Amino acid sequence: MNYRVVAQVSDLDKVKAALVSCRNLLEDLGNVQLEVVFNQMAVRALVKGSEYEGDVDELIKMGVLIVACRNAMRLNNINEGDLINGVAIVNAGVGEIVRKMADGWLYLRL
Amino acid sequence: MNYRVVAQVSDLDKVKAALVSCRNLLEDLGNVQLEVVFNQMAVRALVKGSEYEGDVDELIKMGVLIVACRNAMRLNNINEGDLINGVAIVNAGVGEIVRKMADGWLYLRL
Amino acid sequence: MNYRVVAQVSDLDKVKAALVSCRNLLEDLGNVQLEVVFNQMAVRALVKGSEYEGDVDELIKMGVLIVACRNAMRLNNINEGDLINGVAIVNAGVGEIVRKMADGWLYLRL
Repeated sequence: MNYRVVAQVSDLDKVKAALVSCRNLLEDLGNVQLEVVFNQMAVRALVKGSEYEGDVDELIKMGVLIVACRNAMRLNNINEGDLINGVAIVNAGVGEIVRKMADGWLYLRL
Repeated sequence: MNYRVVAQVSDLDKVKAALVSCRNLLEDLGNVQLEVVFNQMAVRALVKGSEYEGDVDELIKMGVLIVACRNAMRLNNINEGDLINGVAIVNAGVGEIVRKMADGWLYLRL
Repeated sequence: MNYRVVAQVSDLDKVKAALVSCRNLLEDLGNVQLEVVFNQMAVRALVKGSEYEGDVDELIKMGVLIVACRNAMRLNNINEGDLINGVAIVNAGVGEIVRKMADGWLYLRL
């Protein structure tokens, strides 16, 4: 089965555990299309030079779509150029998640 | 598309971010029927005079259904008359959320 | 209606509230098949002698399936024999949750 999962990461202090969960999910399910949306304070993890850059980079190379919420970027004074290479941007993280669910994707709150 | 979304807010320290996410969701999706269920400690945010009253009031005026969990109210010694005008009450927040999902609503944990 | 719900508990400091929510859910819905997956730090709550043992035990006796994530057990140095009697184990909590959702179960993040 080809699973499609959209995951939400909102808390900065849960980013590390969330990234581990993403790895575990890929390993456990094998065939999974994974998109991880970072909104609220968690968006800070996607800035170049953050302590999570290596893990984020690795997930992107494994085919995971990493997404930053533009509303959260604005609140945290983060510009497009500040983001780790390969990170995508959506206007509203929650809107993106709802659209994906409406399209049949399964939702996980990490 | 007319989205129907039931959102859960459980943590008092995440109410502010959750209310911002609700605004972003309405703005981003346009056509969305939104119900926000406050359970556990987050129910305290729905008391008259709370620092969130203005934002809650505005969401209600925008057509959002704001719901308090009666179980959580009991644990926090909150009576019906203590709630911000227009807030609805359900017996169990989690039960309400499950019923809505079973009826096809999409679920967000804020 | 016979509801099938898979719930996720990830934070150790939210276990108490999560267990209360499980009780409320059973009481409110009546006919519900409930599986609760403990991953990340929350898995510590499932160790024999933990402060949550009594509540966990009671839920198991009420027919709730309590599940520990093996990845989280490894990170927390927890062995199978350390777990409260009756607790089940899966390789990856998030994988289990996704499989259940793909099978039509409703998802709650407690």
